[in-house]
Amino acid sequence: MNAASEALLTDLYELTMAHAYFAQEMTGTAVFEFFVRKLPPHRNFLMAAGLDQVLMYLETFQFAERDLDWLEQTGTFTPSTLDAFRTMRFTGDVHAMPEGTVFFPHEPILRVTAPLPQAQVVETRVMNLLNFQTMVASKACRSVLVAEEKPLIDFGLRRAHGAEAGLLAARAGYLAGFAGTSNVLAGARFGMPTYGTMAHAFVQAHHDEAEAFLHIAQAQPGNVVLLIDTYDTEAAAEKVVVLAPRLKGQGISIHGVRLDSGDLAAHARKVRQILDRGGLTDTKILASGNLDEERVNALVQSEAPIDRFAVGTAMTTSADAPYLDCAYKLQEYAGRPCRKRSEGKATWPGRKQVYRRLGRDGRLAEDIITIEGDNQPGRPLLQPVMQGGRRLTPSPSIQEIRDHARMALAELPDTLRRLEQAAPYDVRIAETLEQLARQADRYT
Amino acid sequence: MNAASEALLTDLYELTMAHAYFAQEMTGTAVFEFFVRKLPPHRNFLMAAGLDQVLMYLETFQFAERDLDWLEQTGTFTPSTLDAFRTMRFTGDVHAMPEGTVFFPHEPILRVTAPLPQAQVVETRVMNLLNFQTMVASKACRSVLVAEEKPLIDFGLRRAHGAEAGLLAARAGYLAGFAGTSNVLAGARFGMPTYGTMAHAFVQAHHDEAEAFLHIAQAQPGNVVLLIDTYDTEAAAEKVVVLAPRLKGQGISIHGVRLDSGDLAAHARKVRQILDRGGLTDTKILASGNLDEERVNALVQSEAPIDRFAVGTAMTTSADAPYLDCAYKLQEYAGRPCRKRSEGKATWPGRKQVYRRLGRDGRLAEDIITIEGDNQPGRPLLQPVMQGGRRLTPSPSIQEIRDHARMALAELPDTLRRLEQAAPYDVRIAETLEQLARQADRYT
Repeated sequence: MNAASEALLTDLYELTMAHAYFAQEMTGTAVFEFFVRKLPPHRNFLMAAGLDQVLMYLETFQFAERDLDWLEQTGTFTPSTLDAFRTMRFTGDVHAMPEGTVFFPHEPILRVTAPLPQAQVVETRVMNLLNFQTMVASKACRSVLVAEEKPLIDFGLRRAHGAEAGLLAARAGYLAGFAGTSNVLAGARFGMPTYGTMAHAFVQAHHDEAEAFLHIAQAQPGNVVLLIDTYDTEAAAEKVVVLAPRLKGQGISIHGVRLDSGDLAAHARKVRQILDRGGLTDTKILASGNLDEERVNALVQSEAPIDRFAVGTAMTTSADAPYLDCAYKLQEYAGRPCRKRSEGKATWPGRKQVYRRLGRDGRLAEDIITIEGDNQPGRPLLQPVMQGGRRLTPSPSIQEIRDHARMALAELPDTLRRLEQAAPYDVRIAETLEQLARQADRYT
Repeated sequence: MNAASEALLTDLYELTMAHAYFAQEMTGTAVFEFFVRKLPPHRNFLMAAGLDQVLMYLETFQFAERDLDWLEQTGTFTPSTLDAFRTMRFTGDVHAMPEGTVFFPHEPILRVTAPLPQAQVVETRVMNLLNFQTMVASKACRSVLVAEEKPLIDFGLRRAHGAEAGLLAARAGYLAGFAGTSNVLAGARFGMPTYGTMAHAFVQAHHDEAEAFLHIAQAQPGNVVLLIDTYDTEAAAEKVVVLAPRLKGQGISIHGVRLDSGDLAAHARKVRQILDRGGLTDTKILASGNLDEERVNALVQSEAPIDRFAVGTAMTTSADAPYLDCAYKLQEYAGRPCRKRSEGKATWPGRKQVYRRLGRDGRLAEDIITIEGDNQPGRPLLQPVMQGGRRLTPSPSIQEIRDHARMALAELPDTLRRLEQAAPYDVRIAETLEQLARQADRYT
């Protein structure tokens, strides 16, 4: 997806609405907020992610000449609208929760304040970016919380929904606490650690499994992780033991073995015994193969001797909840608070702030959603991040985001840390906001 | 995702295995096949899609200098491997089922025949592309089959998993029989029809709903579709009736109204009455809002007066089955058939062909999977599409693919057309292939 076309990555109605706004000279200041209406099943909280990509998109927003040529030939837009598109840049302000912040339904994690056509036109891509990474980070947290410090590695690229999904899922998993990814491009782009082992094809391409182990070990002597389930897992573990002294003679140690099928706990126990008996007590066991947080939890709880887990498809696609019920809604236009009252989809009007109060135990006690300027106890979660289309500070490093996420998870009460659905966390609507909603209703 | 980096969009192990293959001079001819192990829940068949993107990827496969710089600084690869990467192009052959072909588990839809390192390195992206579009096209077919010729429109971009997912989901839906998409970039890139209405924000930004209708109608006089559920659906329908004569005076007719919340069937009936009573008998009703094939089916069966449906998130993310249990497996190396026997994941060896036999009613009767050259009754589904790294024919137009898909759906027996899980379709393994599997087992 090259930058020149990213402005066209939008729903057609954003452009026709902008066209109408220009025609009516409705270019006053609009305030849109992005929030999630309700938690997906099996989620006790969400983790904000994707802000950095949103800010990059807004900073570089621009129609290319060939985009304008295409829009012109649709016959939908007047020359004056096409001229307005040509010079359109994002010149607004953004407030947001930092990536890695834990949040709950109805809490805005991003607020866009900009001339109405700009704030409207960016809707689709802003939602597309925040929905995806937030969804993946929130899913990844669940594995992180049950893995008890055992490293988790993202193996999801092959079943990610396209290129960008693979790249950004790796990022979202890493910021939530994964140790790294198999995705080389994510490593190059985001400076994340990359991990790799070997595929069944490598074993199959050889006449002999032991020979395959020897060859892959010699090719990557610094990181030998042998896949041992192509034919018979325990027989392959025995071959690893036989091979080890020969490799040691070449200065190569076997860092790990990978199990990818069958009863992973049972195989891990047998393989651990075989390796230990063969003196390979330092050789780690990596488990993969359709893992998700439920399976990781079961394996950890079973005390199976597995040292690290590769989680792929389940995290990358957020398989049990592959979308968020999220929205980007107009909350104020030209100084007037707005709300939508569609059945089941009503929203809170105005520019909002979320305050978070911790208990004496340092864990979350209560969040309060209110309007900006109505100070409440606790710390405010939305911060100014962009003004006049420019970032206020350089984007935090991914390590800083990881640190923030780790602290956010540490603040979770035990009930919210578990995989089972918990009683909803207490999010209170401040009386000031209730009043504003009643006032907004009188306008329509 | 620019072309220069697409070669890095891969799992690290593909590159380390290639490194080992080079070191061992294992550059003989490898045959890999892509197939799905089993149907996801709620699917009676799958539809092949994504081939055009795979062939584009293979045709243009190349590491950029900056990719090589990055790989070099990882310290994992020798200068000779980096040189091999530098000159690496895809020079192999590809056989595939045309996009829009219906297929079943264990039937390969793509075969790659190429020097082993090439065939290995492209694995991740080939899977990434085929898994996604095939999954979405297969999901989209279900809505197409129940919509009874009523147009379906893709509204999924905002909750698609990133940019490429939004773009390619629009394509996959269109080839499966959707009428078009809201995605402007998909329209520009693939020549698909684009559709747009208006958002709640547009209504909210106005003081008066009727004024908002007037403004959007004047802005896009050729395609007036008014969103009427922002506050009160039926009240808004009455406003549409009042507005119509005024617009008619300006030469503008109201093409449609959109319902996006509440009980869509009930609202549609009331709104239809209001419109008809107001003389707007030609004004269509479009329904949207968390629709999937089950809801489309229920609305169609209820005979609610809905003329077209917008299906978004459910299709774009294939929400009930957001991945396929797919694999890209080595089936032959240097003339020797291979298979994997991992528990629950055993595969059929060799270069395969799938024959499809129709019954006298012109519907699918039986598929037979066998090895290439073992002719069976029916028509072979895999065709040569690339030789020596070059396409054999220009890619079919998306209209041709749509026609092929429509014929494929017409060949489905009634049981497989329904939304409910049907008894599995009869896919037979030919005796020749059974023999080859026994032979492959003797090798290991």
